[in-house]
Amino acid sequence: MSIIVQKFGGTSIADAEKIHRAARRAIKTKLDGHQVVMTVSAMGKTTDKLVALANQVNPNPPKREIDMLLTTGEQVSISLMAMAIAAAGHEAISFTGGQIGMVTDSAHTKARIQSVDADRIHRHLDEGKIVIVAGFQGITEEGAITTLGRGGSDTTAVALAAVLKADACEVYTDVDGVYTTDPRIVPQARKMHEITYDEMLELASLGAGVMHSRSMEFGKKYNVPIHVRSSLTDSKGTMIVPETTGMEEIVVRGVTLKRDMAVVVLIGVPNKPGIASQIFARIAKHNIIVDDIIQNVYEHGHEANIGFSTSQSDVKEAGTICEEMAKDIGFKQVEVDENVAKVSIVGIGMKSHTGVAAKMFTALAKEKINIQNIATSEIVISCIIDQKDGERALQALHATFELDKNAD
Amino acid sequence: MSIIVQKFGGTSIADAEKIHRAARRAIKTKLDGHQVVMTVSAMGKTTDKLVALANQVNPNPPKREIDMLLTTGEQVSISLMAMAIAAAGHEAISFTGGQIGMVTDSAHTKARIQSVDADRIHRHLDEGKIVIVAGFQGITEEGAITTLGRGGSDTTAVALAAVLKADACEVYTDVDGVYTTDPRIVPQARKMHEITYDEMLELASLGAGVMHSRSMEFGKKYNVPIHVRSSLTDSKGTMIVPETTGMEEIVVRGVTLKRDMAVVVLIGVPNKPGIASQIFARIAKHNIIVDDIIQNVYEHGHEANIGFSTSQSDVKEAGTICEEMAKDIGFKQVEVDENVAKVSIVGIGMKSHTGVAAKMFTALAKEKINIQNIATSEIVISCIIDQKDGERALQALHATFELDKNAD
Repeated sequence: MSIIVQKFGGTSIADAEKIHRAARRAIKTKLDGHQVVMTVSAMGKTTDKLVALANQVNPNPPKREIDMLLTTGEQVSISLMAMAIAAAGHEAISFTGGQIGMVTDSAHTKARIQSVDADRIHRHLDEGKIVIVAGFQGITEEGAITTLGRGGSDTTAVALAAVLKADACEVYTDVDGVYTTDPRIVPQARKMHEITYDEMLELASLGAGVMHSRSMEFGKKYNVPIHVRSSLTDSKGTMIVPETTGMEEIVVRGVTLKRDMAVVVLIGVPNKPGIASQIFARIAKHNIIVDDIIQNVYEHGHEANIGFSTSQSDVKEAGTICEEMAKDIGFKQVEVDENVAKVSIVGIGMKSHTGVAAKMFTALAKEKINIQNIATSEIVISCIIDQKDGERALQALHATFELDKNAD
Repeated sequence: MSIIVQKFGGTSIADAEKIHRAARRAIKTKLDGHQVVMTVSAMGKTTDKLVALANQVNPNPPKREIDMLLTTGEQVSISLMAMAIAAAGHEAISFTGGQIGMVTDSAHTKARIQSVDADRIHRHLDEGKIVIVAGFQGITEEGAITTLGRGGSDTTAVALAAVLKADACEVYTDVDGVYTTDPRIVPQARKMHEITYDEMLELASLGAGVMHSRSMEFGKKYNVPIHVRSSLTDSKGTMIVPETTGMEEIVVRGVTLKRDMAVVVLIGVPNKPGIASQIFARIAKHNIIVDDIIQNVYEHGHEANIGFSTSQSDVKEAGTICEEMAKDIGFKQVEVDENVAKVSIVGIGMKSHTGVAAKMFTALAKEKINIQNIATSEIVISCIIDQKDGERALQALHATFELDKNAD
C-alpha cells in the first residue's frame, strides 16, 4: 500500500478550524486508498511565545532546557490533530519524536537525525490508523529531548518519507507552491511546476521561506519526491525532484532578494595563512551569522580586502569586534555599510551555460544599479547592491531571464 | 546526605517572578546541605486553557490524546524552572515523567503509579544538580504518556519522596498550611501543626483544596513526612504524619462545608438483591459523580428509600435518569433537592470517643438547622442540610468542638 507523508506548518493549523481542515485532508487521502503519516509544527505563533517566556526567566537559557520547552508546541499540535481525526470518526494516534524513535545527536537546538524507527509507524499504519508525528523534535540515545533547528518540521517530514519509502512527501503551507520570485515585488512571478533539490536548497537559504534547506539535503540524499502545496486549495503545487537532463534547459530558475543586509569590509589585511580563520572564529564566538565572504588580494599578494555580509541586526556588534581586531591583527581600516541588499539568481542550468553572470551584470547596469560585491557558487550568482535598488533589481532580473515565460 | 522533595503548585509558579522565587527556595535548601528534587505543576491556569483548546476541537476527545496534550503544561514548567536555577548560577536538570521512569498503568487521565526509577535521580543529585521532575505525568510500559488525574502533582511529589527515602516532602502552596476549617467563613479557624494522613485524606475529599487524597494514600503507605507550607513566607506550615496515640486526644480535627450539593431520593424501591447495583451502574454510565449514598429499608424490609448526594451541575441529568429507571425498576417516586450543602466533622479521635455524633446533632439543633441525611465513616460524620444554613452550621460546629482552641 502506498504511503503519503503530509506536513502541516504552523499557519496551516493555527486554530481549531484549520486543524479540522488539515484532518479532513488526511482522512480524504486515507479514503483514497493510501496510508497516511502526518507531521505537524507548533500552532501559529506558539514557538515565538515560548521563546519570549524563556527570555523572561533567563535571557541565556541552557540549550537542553530550550529544547525541553519548545517541543511542547508540537506536542500540543499532535494531540489536537488526533482529537480532530477522532471527531470525524477515524482512527489516529499521536507520537512525540522520542516515542517514535527519532534519534538525533545531542547538539541541542540544532540536532541532526541519526535514525528513525519505521517499524512502530508501519505497525500502526497497518492497523488502519493515521499516524501523527511531532515535527521538529527528536531524542538522543540517552533519552534527552532535542530539536532540529529552524525548519525542523520539514526535515522530520522528509526523513519520515525517506525511511518509510513513502510515495510522496506533501508539504502544506499558506502559499500554493514555489515561485520564480516574490510575487509581492514582481507581479509577473510564476509558480514553478518543478524544481531540483539543489535549486530549492539555494532558494531556501536565500530567504524563500517555503522549505528549509536541511530538509532538501535529506530529500536529495534519499530521493524523496516532495510536493509543496497550499493547505487551502486542491490545486497542484511545486514538485521538488532530482535533477534531470532536460531541466538544464532553464538556465535561471528563480531570483531572490534578501533585504536588511549589511556589509563589513576589512581593508589592508596582511595576507598571511591563518588570518581569515582568526577573524571569522572571533566573529563566530559572538554568535554573529556571516552570510557570504569575499576576499581580494592586492599589493602583489601582500595585502587583502576581506568583505563579508551579515544581517543589519548583527552588524553593529560585528563592526565593533572588527575594530578591536584591527589593532590586534593589524589591518588598516574597517568599513561598514548598513544599507545593502543581496539579489541572487539560482539555476541548475548555470553549470552548463556560459555568460550568465555577464547577462546579470548587464541587466543591473542598464538599470544604473551599482554592484558592491559579487559572490558565486555553482548554481547561484549573488550581488550586493544598495538597499534602495533591491526591488528594481529583482524586477529587472526576473524580466531579463524571462522567468515570467519559462517557469513551467 | 538528606534528600528534600519540594513540590510547587500552579499558583506558586504562575509567572517568571514566582518561578524565580521557587528556584531561590530550592537553591537555599541545597546550600543548607540537602539534595533537592523539585516537582512542579503547570503554570497558573495553563491546564484549564489546554482543556478549553481540546474542547474546541473535540468535545469528547480520546483519553490518550488528552494526556498527550495536558502533559505539555508541566513540561513547560520544568524547563523554565531549570532555566531559572541556571540564571542564578546553579546546576539543574529537568525530566518529564517518562524520562525519569515514572511508570504507570495505562488508565489514561487517571493512571496509577506502578514504579519509579530512583537510580537516575540519585545519579544527578550526586553530581550536585537540583533535579526537576514534571508532576502529574507518567509513562506506560509501552511508552504511552499518561496523567495521574486531579492533584496528580502532589502524588508525584509524595511518590518521589517515598522511593528516594526523602527526609521530607515539602508542598508549597498559596496558603500557609492546613486549617481547622475555611477561614473565609470562620474567622476563628486555626492553622494545625499536624494532622494524620487519614484525616487529611478525608478533609481533601471533602473539598479542603490543600492536598489531594490520592497523594495521602501514598504518604500513609510509605510513611512520608509531608510539610504543607506557604511559597511566600518561611513560616512553618502543617506536618502530615502517621497516627500517634497522643493524637486521639483531639476528637475532631477539622470541619468542612461542601456547597453546591444536591440530593436525589428514590422512594419505594423494591428491596431485592442487585437493585442498588443496577441503579448506580446506570448513573455511573452517564459519568455522574455520586458523593454519599444512604439507604433505609421499611415495610418489614420489603421497600427501601435510597438517597444519594451529587453536585448541582449533575443533578438535573441524574434526576432524568432516575425518572426513567422508576418505570423500568418499579419504584414509586423520585425526589430532588437542588439546594443543599454538606457539613462534615473529621477526626481520628472519633474512633475511641463516643457521643461525637450526638454532640454534632445537638449543635445543629440549637441553631435550628434541620438535618436531611446523615452519613458516617470511621473518622467522618456528614450531614446534608439546607444550602442557606451551611455557613452557620460550619461556625457552630467549629465553636462546639473548640477548634479555635485545640488545633495546635
